[in-house]
Amino acid sequence: MKTKKVTFADIAKYTGFSKTTISRYFNDPDSLTLENQQKIADALDALDYKENKVGRILASGRTEFIGLIIPNLYMHYYSEMLNQILATYETYGYKFLVFAGNEKADVERKYIEELMAYNIEGMIVLSPTIPSDELASYNVPVVGIEREDRYISSVNTDNYMGGVQAASLLRKSDCDILIHVNGNIPDTSPASGRIKGFVDVCEEYNVPYELILTHLGNTFEKNRNKIEEIVALLEKKYPDKKKGIFMPNDTHANVLLNYLFQKYGKLPETYQIIGFDNSPISREAVIPTSTVGQQISLIANEAMKILSDQMEERKKRRPAPLKEPVHKIIPPILIRRETTA
Amino acid sequence: MKTKKVTFADIAKYTGFSKTTISRYFNDPDSLTLENQQKIADALDALDYKENKVGRILASGRTEFIGLIIPNLYMHYYSEMLNQILATYETYGYKFLVFAGNEKADVERKYIEELMAYNIEGMIVLSPTIPSDELASYNVPVVGIEREDRYISSVNTDNYMGGVQAASLLRKSDCDILIHVNGNIPDTSPASGRIKGFVDVCEEYNVPYELILTHLGNTFEKNRNKIEEIVALLEKKYPDKKKGIFMPNDTHANVLLNYLFQKYGKLPETYQIIGFDNSPISREAVIPTSTVGQQISLIANEAMKILSDQMEERKKRRPAPLKEPVHKIIPPILIRRETTA
Repeated sequence: MKTKKVTFADIAKYTGFSKTTISRYFNDPDSLTLENQQKIADALDALDYKENKVGRILASGRTEFIGLIIPNLYMHYYSEMLNQILATYETYGYKFLVFAGNEKADVERKYIEELMAYNIEGMIVLSPTIPSDELASYNVPVVGIEREDRYISSVNTDNYMGGVQAASLLRKSDCDILIHVNGNIPDTSPASGRIKGFVDVCEEYNVPYELILTHLGNTFEKNRNKIEEIVALLEKKYPDKKKGIFMPNDTHANVLLNYLFQKYGKLPETYQIIGFDNSPISREAVIPTSTVGQQISLIANEAMKILSDQMEERKKRRPAPLKEPVHKIIPPILIRRETTA
Repeated sequence: MKTKKVTFADIAKYTGFSKTTISRYFNDPDSLTLENQQKIADALDALDYKENKVGRILASGRTEFIGLIIPNLYMHYYSEMLNQILATYETYGYKFLVFAGNEKADVERKYIEELMAYNIEGMIVLSPTIPSDELASYNVPVVGIEREDRYISSVNTDNYMGGVQAASLLRKSDCDILIHVNGNIPDTSPASGRIKGFVDVCEEYNVPYELILTHLGNTFEKNRNKIEEIVALLEKKYPDKKKGIFMPNDTHANVLLNYLFQKYGKLPETYQIIGFDNSPISREAVIPTSTVGQQISLIANEAMKILSDQMEERKKRRPAPLKEPVHKIIPPILIRRETTA
């Protein structure tokens, strides 16, 4: 920042090109031959040119900014996904303007409007708050992850397969009753596939099952209270049965596991637990917890790949916009640890 | 974004001012009377003017961007701090360009250089990687949190007091030997105060103690291996003694607690554990864990307050830069839970 500024005039003098040519190099490089582009690039190195990105942004619209909207950082899955997305900087060079909406739709909307005023080149949205048709209307490339995605591109885990894997593992662990706890998820959310996969396995093999569809809350205290209620209900309804419980994510599976440990000093033999995500907490738990693993690093990288392709396309002289959103499905990986037989 | 663009000419026509006056409103508002500023502001409302922030940025340098550099998102303390800092958007309106350096100094340095090219207005740095004199040389306001801060402003927990609190609690829990596990921290890091506070209490009351200063690693697997080694060492050296262990943070306290649970099916009576931070994992653990609480929300807000004051100062026509960095110390709060008597 403290080196003397190299101007377009300096670069023109050094290369023998006109200032207009130098300006075209920054604003419309494709209008120069590759050879001339290379000459100017070499001159920039030689002159130790520090670009003023803000100036370049104004000229070209290439801000290299991506808006990243996550629901919260309480859930370990989101911290880990954020970590993996930020790490793509080394590969792609895009910078992330990060916001955690914490379910405040109005603040999230205001934030996105602001991002638009900054000419962000694209968005990655994990938050389910704003419908995809509204996101698509902003007219920048958007990739959703594990949220309603009818009008935007997306990368999602194969949730149906995940539900099948969880139910199959619990069924083979000789459970008498299979329980799936989840939010009251709309059919348009990819996560609803888990419920369907779970139910299909139970029905195909005539295994008794129960769905407990209720919002567990976004703080530990709320989770804990809800999960205590659920355990009380299950122990009343199925006192001596072996209960196989498929939790909606590893954070909530960990709350259940710790509650049972506090109550019984161990995981009783009448309980089997499986979570979802393979987020760090599943390995770090008091007993390493079985889980349907999302390939978080792969999802982050696929999302950046799709977004980057679309952002690059828009920089061409004759961009060919996507006719339909791209939806990429990543298989889950069943991870058997110590909370299932 | 899709409304017809309102130009300076439109605003000039509506208000009767010249285009130069309109331009001055955006680029140097103080050069107009308050009355005329108000007239133009009203016109913008009436015309439903959508500002092009990039244009305004170039003119005024007010990007409203803050660079936020964290070490990693594996430690629950950093996720929680990030959450609290992002939440200040509602109060201050600044947008955060977030980067997790994961100890790669070169990538972190490259990222910061890029941020400078975008005219960020300030930085909040939690990562210890880059020395404070180098951060100060970028010539934008910087606030450090819990890192070496000789040449930059900072907000830190009173780490010495934290060490005193932890040692005092373990001493009163009738431990025979007090152990403090921590990284091999340089004296310039605020966290070194914990070691000093811990040692001072032990020496004042003639309590036997041991410092285990070693890097525990930044992944769960590395933590786990190191902590297993430490437990083996302690059980060999102090087989029947009651051991009071002060861990460097709640994430590592949780790894220790879970390891002991896996080994003994409970927290043996010969162990007392206290962590540091009061991050969510300390409440969510298999036994709620005692901890020296950092006031994370207060720290985040104080950091933004100091940074915002300095950023505002620089926007004045005759800014008065800080003569000395500001260092704010926040007291820790001892939280007694179930891992200490």
